[in-house]
Amino acid sequence: MKVAYQGEPGAFSEIACENLFPDQTTLPCKTFRDVFEALQNGLCEVAVLPVENSLAGSVHENYDLILEYPNLHIISETQVHVSHYLLGIESASLKTIKTVLSHPQALMQSAAFLDSYPEWNRQSFYDTAGSAAYVAQKGDESIAAIASKRAAERYGLKILAAAIETNHHNYTRFFALAPKSYPAKIPINKASIVFTLGQEIGSLARVLTKIAEAGFSLIKLESRPIHGRPWQYMFYADMELHGALDNFEDLIKLLPDFAGDLRVLGTYHSDLFIAPS
Amino acid sequence: MKVAYQGEPGAFSEIACENLFPDQTTLPCKTFRDVFEALQNGLCEVAVLPVENSLAGSVHENYDLILEYPNLHIISETQVHVSHYLLGIESASLKTIKTVLSHPQALMQSAAFLDSYPEWNRQSFYDTAGSAAYVAQKGDESIAAIASKRAAERYGLKILAAAIETNHHNYTRFFALAPKSYPAKIPINKASIVFTLGQEIGSLARVLTKIAEAGFSLIKLESRPIHGRPWQYMFYADMELHGALDNFEDLIKLLPDFAGDLRVLGTYHSDLFIAPS
Repeated sequence: MKVAYQGEPGAFSEIACENLFPDQTTLPCKTFRDVFEALQNGLCEVAVLPVENSLAGSVHENYDLILEYPNLHIISETQVHVSHYLLGIESASLKTIKTVLSHPQALMQSAAFLDSYPEWNRQSFYDTAGSAAYVAQKGDESIAAIASKRAAERYGLKILAAAIETNHHNYTRFFALAPKSYPAKIPINKASIVFTLGQEIGSLARVLTKIAEAGFSLIKLESRPIHGRPWQYMFYADMELHGALDNFEDLIKLLPDFAGDLRVLGTYHSDLFIAPS
Repeated sequence: MKVAYQGEPGAFSEIACENLFPDQTTLPCKTFRDVFEALQNGLCEVAVLPVENSLAGSVHENYDLILEYPNLHIISETQVHVSHYLLGIESASLKTIKTVLSHPQALMQSAAFLDSYPEWNRQSFYDTAGSAAYVAQKGDESIAAIASKRAAERYGLKILAAAIETNHHNYTRFFALAPKSYPAKIPINKASIVFTLGQEIGSLARVLTKIAEAGFSLIKLESRPIHGRPWQYMFYADMELHGALDNFEDLIKLLPDFAGDLRVLGTYHSDLFIAPS
């Protein structure tokens, strides 16, 4: 089985692939859209995509892309602890470094550490693991990358500083997506839906009340703009099902009275309800 | 009176300043945080900040920053129609252009137009108006900027192509912020609040039901992660008040029974309820 993800080998997305599908072959893709296209075109059986970081918030691009591929569904969910490492070649040390490369978000999340080296030049790179690959390939002791520990192993780089992220409570949530013919992981404990609302007072309150009456915990509610309809939104709701799958089917039957364009993005197993270690 | 905004002269934010505070002096600032700091330190009386684009979604950084400055409040709201222009120096034409500079979002929003010139190199710039200033300063007919019509006038550039945005329904929403001693614009027709929720089933439904029972339309609901508490959120709610200001005061008295950390970000006048032209 092939599992597609966005990024270079050593990316946090690759770690998520391994959590969800151990010992499977991975297919690295350049962009998020490339991952969806690989799945749509049968180049892989499943795809693993980041949907939210606990510090930065939602990955809006993937929320938008899910809507463009209606024949896919969410089959499972996991999270990865994001810990950043400063990596260099064998002869590098904190004294030889002049430039640090990484994804802008990793640079930002490591700002407190980097601030103690004001002489270092910080440079944006499209990908954390890609910046590690670049440092290894250049073989230059004046440049370092910020990437995962796995990237250090993958590219044979030395760890110059470990766990340099300012806030250690840094997690990224990933969905596994597959064509609808592919079954969701069990036991099913979570569901994600998307819908629109009318303009009348209380329209969102009514939908959320129906979800609560069905006995489900609303985990997350995300609104995304509808292109071409300023200040109107698609709402994405994630809910914990507490084992009541029949209630979910009943809910989906009655929701069209309260919400428009309803789509179930998936009913699936999430391992997030186990407290993060 | 001085009005601070982020960007260079000619930025869409400057247009918003003029909509809200005609004929006032403006104070351009480099970053969003610089704008908040200018206001906090009395370098200006009010500040105008983008909070949402109808295509790209919320400007999360400003939602997060509002929380850091509890002595400020929202005093009014406006929107600006975002239309992109391709700008060059007097001798430039579509035939001389080799490189196009702009903010990544402006490049993305003009992608359909740019795709008809695949030989052009697209380059990111920190600011749309800043890219126009750069083209004017360089005096090089091989580079063009994507910026507002106002930036063309401001920097004496020629319009090489007008309204090149793919989706013309492109608006940005701006809040005006001021210290709490500064009165909100009247007539007051909108309010913004922020709150947290407990883990019990139906907690958000109950808050939104109270808002609906008070007779207010929920315009927007935005969730932002709480740093250090993975998968827990601050909720930002905007509501239209329909003239019932007394009801709003009653609502704010009873909401603490249903929501935590409640803060009123402002009750103010919005001109968004007039249909965009």
